[in-house]
Amino acid sequence: MSNLQPAITFEEIRALVRNLPGPDLDSGTAALQRERQLTKPAGSLGRLEEIAQWMATWQGQHPAEVRRPRVAVFAGNHGVAARGVSAYPADVTAQMVANFQNGGAAVNQLCEVADADLRVYELDLENPTADFTQGPAMGEEECCRAMAYGMMAVEQGVQLLALGEMGIGNSTAAAAICCALFGGEAKDWVGRGTGVDDEGLARKAAAIEAGLAANPQARGDAFEALRCFGGYELAAIAGAILAARMARVPVLLDGYACTAVAAVLFKADRRALDHCMVAHRSVEPGHSRLLEAIGKEPLLDLGMRLGEGSGATLAINIVRSACACHAGMATFAEAGVSTREG
Amino acid sequence: MSNLQPAITFEEIRALVRNLPGPDLDSGTAALQRERQLTKPAGSLGRLEEIAQWMATWQGQHPAEVRRPRVAVFAGNHGVAARGVSAYPADVTAQMVANFQNGGAAVNQLCEVADADLRVYELDLENPTADFTQGPAMGEEECCRAMAYGMMAVEQGVQLLALGEMGIGNSTAAAAICCALFGGEAKDWVGRGTGVDDEGLARKAAAIEAGLAANPQARGDAFEALRCFGGYELAAIAGAILAARMARVPVLLDGYACTAVAAVLFKADRRALDHCMVAHRSVEPGHSRLLEAIGKEPLLDLGMRLGEGSGATLAINIVRSACACHAGMATFAEAGVSTREG
Repeated sequence: MSNLQPAITFEEIRALVRNLPGPDLDSGTAALQRERQLTKPAGSLGRLEEIAQWMATWQGQHPAEVRRPRVAVFAGNHGVAARGVSAYPADVTAQMVANFQNGGAAVNQLCEVADADLRVYELDLENPTADFTQGPAMGEEECCRAMAYGMMAVEQGVQLLALGEMGIGNSTAAAAICCALFGGEAKDWVGRGTGVDDEGLARKAAAIEAGLAANPQARGDAFEALRCFGGYELAAIAGAILAARMARVPVLLDGYACTAVAAVLFKADRRALDHCMVAHRSVEPGHSRLLEAIGKEPLLDLGMRLGEGSGATLAINIVRSACACHAGMATFAEAGVSTREG
Repeated sequence: MSNLQPAITFEEIRALVRNLPGPDLDSGTAALQRERQLTKPAGSLGRLEEIAQWMATWQGQHPAEVRRPRVAVFAGNHGVAARGVSAYPADVTAQMVANFQNGGAAVNQLCEVADADLRVYELDLENPTADFTQGPAMGEEECCRAMAYGMMAVEQGVQLLALGEMGIGNSTAAAAICCALFGGEAKDWVGRGTGVDDEGLARKAAAIEAGLAANPQARGDAFEALRCFGGYELAAIAGAILAARMARVPVLLDGYACTAVAAVLFKADRRALDHCMVAHRSVEPGHSRLLEAIGKEPLLDLGMRLGEGSGATLAINIVRSACACHAGMATFAEAGVSTREG
């Protein structure tokens, strides 16, 4: 990260979060009005109707479109990985990035089915963040640089952004962030991640307890929680979520790590995630607890826990289907279908 | 239906159900073995892994493919619709078939996103089945003709079959079938369908109670339940499910009406639905009860209750994604990714 200039400060990010653009109510209302005329019983498409309205509201156009979805996967390494918190060695982060680049990972196949543009962003993989059991994982400047880097993932013309991460050790980082943001004990927020055994699970909880003790300031402030426990890839995701809001790009959040970052923004301002949907419910038990804390109901629940944006990418065709129904269906009048009796 | 020759009898269908082809365990095992080598933690793709194995097992090939999915929507009219059991007049069945043909319905848009071939089968819409409150909806010959008609939807080369229905009044027929198959009272199985009010709901329950009284034989035999309460489109779906099994085509079942028909086959033989997945959980309360009775966990739960194959079509890209991950991902060895530590 050392070659990047500090583009933004915590102070500026806090100001940004306080002044995020709101919903486009005109587009949302237009969606609602059209929905009522489409050839189906009112409400019968369930969450597809909600999605179509949400997309119009946050794209700021009616009808919404999903011709250009992007999947952005951020990768970073974590000092805490040295504490034996993962079933895999830290080298796997870079190996999986190579796998993404060679088209061999799950997210590559999922992007093909979703007709989505995959971008993989490596954040200084040779230089992990500091071990948070000893103090903050990042300095403010490092954290801000990573956030600024993440903001770049949102380019003009992207119509839906699916976010994901790769980083050995980051389910431990996510649990530490959640614990700092929402309280409770480490054991309430940890899970088996890539598949650790009971001892690995105990090491995760111990690392988080040590991290909370070493970083007392993380309990009091959302961005401090991100800086003290987050990896570069997690800070980048926070930046991408904010940039998407500014650019009117609705966001699909992936599983636990991704939602934990989003929760940092939620804690800073409860409206900050209104342009985001959670794509799926991860098996990681902390995810369900976190979803309740931020008031989000995921779209899919397929027992997944892979990360790398897999759940978010899988949900793209759900969102596309919702928008296709909304834009393409005939109205009762157009189709000559009788409306309700009585 | 009068112009079709009786192609099959209940007796022959019973024999067919007793002798359905079983799983291709070689293909299923090949899927399981490949799954273990793919670059992800074991089990981390959750139900996508289950789907890939199920597809291989029931297509009888490894890896499974979803290049040619078909959506088959069957439409029929119900004598019981005259009892005021729907929020819409019976004319809407034919009007919606025209809407399907003109590309204006939800299922048309969903097929486009799923890259699926939509076929709509009308079953003698001008001649509804008899009102089941007065006696059987169909004679055996009529029921068998409709089943034989449904079998035609499964052509050579189809790799995945999504089934759906359109028929004003058929959520009442579905509830009557469930009540006959699994017991309980009518009120346990009815719901608001297209959106009836409390009085409509009471009319549905009353029609079912009257139907059960008028057709006592329906309680004792699964195919009698189908004949006494089912519409032509529901019998056709039963035929399509059986033909798919014979042709090694995995099936996605849609919501309540579709699953109720499938339950007829399940009652006849508990293995009869092993090649079927339920695509989504309908809002219709009887559907959850029914899913428990047949031991199926749906793939999606998006608050939908439209019918017309909408949920089944939406799930096609989930199945396609599962197969794409399974076939396209690199193995640990191919990608040079380290396996678990220790």
